[in-house]
Amino acid sequence: MKVLVINCGSSSLKYQLIDMTNEELLAQGLVERIGIAGSILTQKVSGKGKYIIEEPMNDHKDAIKHVVNALIHDEHGVIKNMDEISAVGHRVVHGGEKYSESVLVNDEVMSYLEECVKLAPLHNRPNIIGIEACKSLMPNVPMAVVFDTAFHGTMPEKAFLYALPYELYEKHSIRKYGFHGTSHKYVSRKVAEVMGRDVEDLKIITCHIGAGASIAAVKGGKSIDTTMGFTPLDGVIMGTRTGSIDPAIVIYLVKELGYSIDEVNEILNKKSGLLGITEMSSDMRDIKEAAYKKGDKRAQLAIDMYTYSIKTKIGAYSAAMGGVDVIVFTAGVGENSFETRRDILEDLEYLGIKLDSERNNVMGETALITTDDSKVKVYVIPTNEELMIAKETVDLLK
Amino acid sequence: MKVLVINCGSSSLKYQLIDMTNEELLAQGLVERIGIAGSILTQKVSGKGKYIIEEPMNDHKDAIKHVVNALIHDEHGVIKNMDEISAVGHRVVHGGEKYSESVLVNDEVMSYLEECVKLAPLHNRPNIIGIEACKSLMPNVPMAVVFDTAFHGTMPEKAFLYALPYELYEKHSIRKYGFHGTSHKYVSRKVAEVMGRDVEDLKIITCHIGAGASIAAVKGGKSIDTTMGFTPLDGVIMGTRTGSIDPAIVIYLVKELGYSIDEVNEILNKKSGLLGITEMSSDMRDIKEAAYKKGDKRAQLAIDMYTYSIKTKIGAYSAAMGGVDVIVFTAGVGENSFETRRDILEDLEYLGIKLDSERNNVMGETALITTDDSKVKVYVIPTNEELMIAKETVDLLK
Repeated sequence: MKVLVINCGSSSLKYQLIDMTNEELLAQGLVERIGIAGSILTQKVSGKGKYIIEEPMNDHKDAIKHVVNALIHDEHGVIKNMDEISAVGHRVVHGGEKYSESVLVNDEVMSYLEECVKLAPLHNRPNIIGIEACKSLMPNVPMAVVFDTAFHGTMPEKAFLYALPYELYEKHSIRKYGFHGTSHKYVSRKVAEVMGRDVEDLKIITCHIGAGASIAAVKGGKSIDTTMGFTPLDGVIMGTRTGSIDPAIVIYLVKELGYSIDEVNEILNKKSGLLGITEMSSDMRDIKEAAYKKGDKRAQLAIDMYTYSIKTKIGAYSAAMGGVDVIVFTAGVGENSFETRRDILEDLEYLGIKLDSERNNVMGETALITTDDSKVKVYVIPTNEELMIAKETVDLLK
Repeated sequence: MKVLVINCGSSSLKYQLIDMTNEELLAQGLVERIGIAGSILTQKVSGKGKYIIEEPMNDHKDAIKHVVNALIHDEHGVIKNMDEISAVGHRVVHGGEKYSESVLVNDEVMSYLEECVKLAPLHNRPNIIGIEACKSLMPNVPMAVVFDTAFHGTMPEKAFLYALPYELYEKHSIRKYGFHGTSHKYVSRKVAEVMGRDVEDLKIITCHIGAGASIAAVKGGKSIDTTMGFTPLDGVIMGTRTGSIDPAIVIYLVKELGYSIDEVNEILNKKSGLLGITEMSSDMRDIKEAAYKKGDKRAQLAIDMYTYSIKTKIGAYSAAMGGVDVIVFTAGVGENSFETRRDILEDLEYLGIKLDSERNNVMGETALITTDDSKVKVYVIPTNEELMIAKETVDLLK
């Protein structure tokens, strides 16, 4: 059974074709500049090198036609015809309050997705366009939507509600939703499997830290809290996003410093985080180079702030769960930066964490990085959101 | 040596006269409705009952004249004449970045206080008016200002900076300042004294929780982090304040729901917190009554959210300090509500906390509330900001 996984952005589209009989990745690709001059599709197939299509793609339907053509291409493709695609799994960012699980696409789901657009306009609109495009090209193929928010649907009220007037929740759905759910779910299952333990018996803190970053408290297999909130702006410091700040700063920027609300939105989401502090880069690799090789103090400060914001969340979620058994690092920085993991875990011996610096010297592969006698285990687990989406899609078809 | 401690609000003024030879409280009083019809001064002196003055008080100078008259009153007073007042200590909310310690009033200090008004207009302006009024009435009496922010002046950059564009810090002083500093300092010193330990050897988490609430991490006697931020809105849930929320909510309320920025300011500061959730009261006593006696679910939810927000901060600050030795509860809720302390400390055994429920059954007095074998000690310590201000004033005069 082969599942096509689609992740649509406003002018881009990522895809993977996965054979779910053995979880083998058959092909993966990226379409960029959809609806813009210079549209380009790049597909990678193991052992076949890159296949590039440069042709005008006016919309997502055009783009998906080219995706299918690339997948069935005589020389560069991996399947003979479209019928080999048994199902499509779509990543959708925001599932609102209704869906705390993945669902098969039907009219009711589509109309609810429309309702959710107001909660995440930049993300859900292209997600919907992608689903519609696939539906019209593959009308008989079952499709599933897998929400970034769904895994966090198990949070208790005390964690997901803000102490705002209650009617803002009742009338306008203002609450914490959390994101990166597919990743937090995947790595929490995976680490339990690697440990040979039942996820239901574990208190896990999952640190998905890349350009975007969020931490989740996963108790008994369920998300009970996470750092991103009503939007993906909240929580720990990110590449260009502030994470949590005093909300009164937004008011101050508008009232006292004369910024427009749109400018503030742009500043907090695009010009802050590591980029805001260093005034140089949002990429941890650049920042580490500047700090470690050039002794750049602002770069070191950004690293210190970033790791401190994650360290204190590990502390907070240990308290939320009444302790912690396992910590998982995943995503770009989490999988690849041993220095960042080291800094985050420094001085956490009181929790029962003993880092093994040799084991920690690892990039992008599953590894235990604490000593054998460390009470709390820490793992690096490469995330695989596409595989998780494909799995959820298969589960829904059963 | 007798010190008069003054805490000026916009239309009110609290005062205490303290004999610093034995730290005895000689008199305390409150002036309300300054500059408004119905001005009233109420003074309490131990063993003498209440003394009330109801006379027009047009401004803070008028009010302070009446304070002095009440203190030297033949029947209700406690001193013979004004010359017995050796010094005046003023509480000032915001000391900006310049002062991380208390200072004696001089022209330079006064002009810096003016600069700080923009950071805390509602508080610093009346504070300045109070100092000016005292100066004109008691021109030869030395005066000190004790800042609510000063104790947090020792926070490291990684804790006090926000991940905003760096120039917002450089040009506009947007950073975390923290408040309630006098209280956090007082109870952290006091708990070390009660334990017979040197404060420099301890990792202390001080929970000042009342209508306003903040938590501080005090390591080696110094504040290294605290929950209130650029303003007193940030941090844990309060009586009417949200505490931390996704800053994007402010943007959403303005852009999508059409609130003005002033309305949002009012909502977040005055209509949120316990009041926002319960839609009934900001006072924990009312809320506990509704939850425990009437089974009110929204009241129980507010309690759960409030205690959860404090519990997770205790976890966060344990991580910030690499562990914790002592936790202190103080201020209205912290000193008086055993149920709130119990709920906050529930499931924190992993940190080494064992609550003693009999010892915890205490109100408004210094007490150890953990068992003798609890690794982490938890104390109730009644705060005394006025005494701390008087002490700092005396220290400055030495």
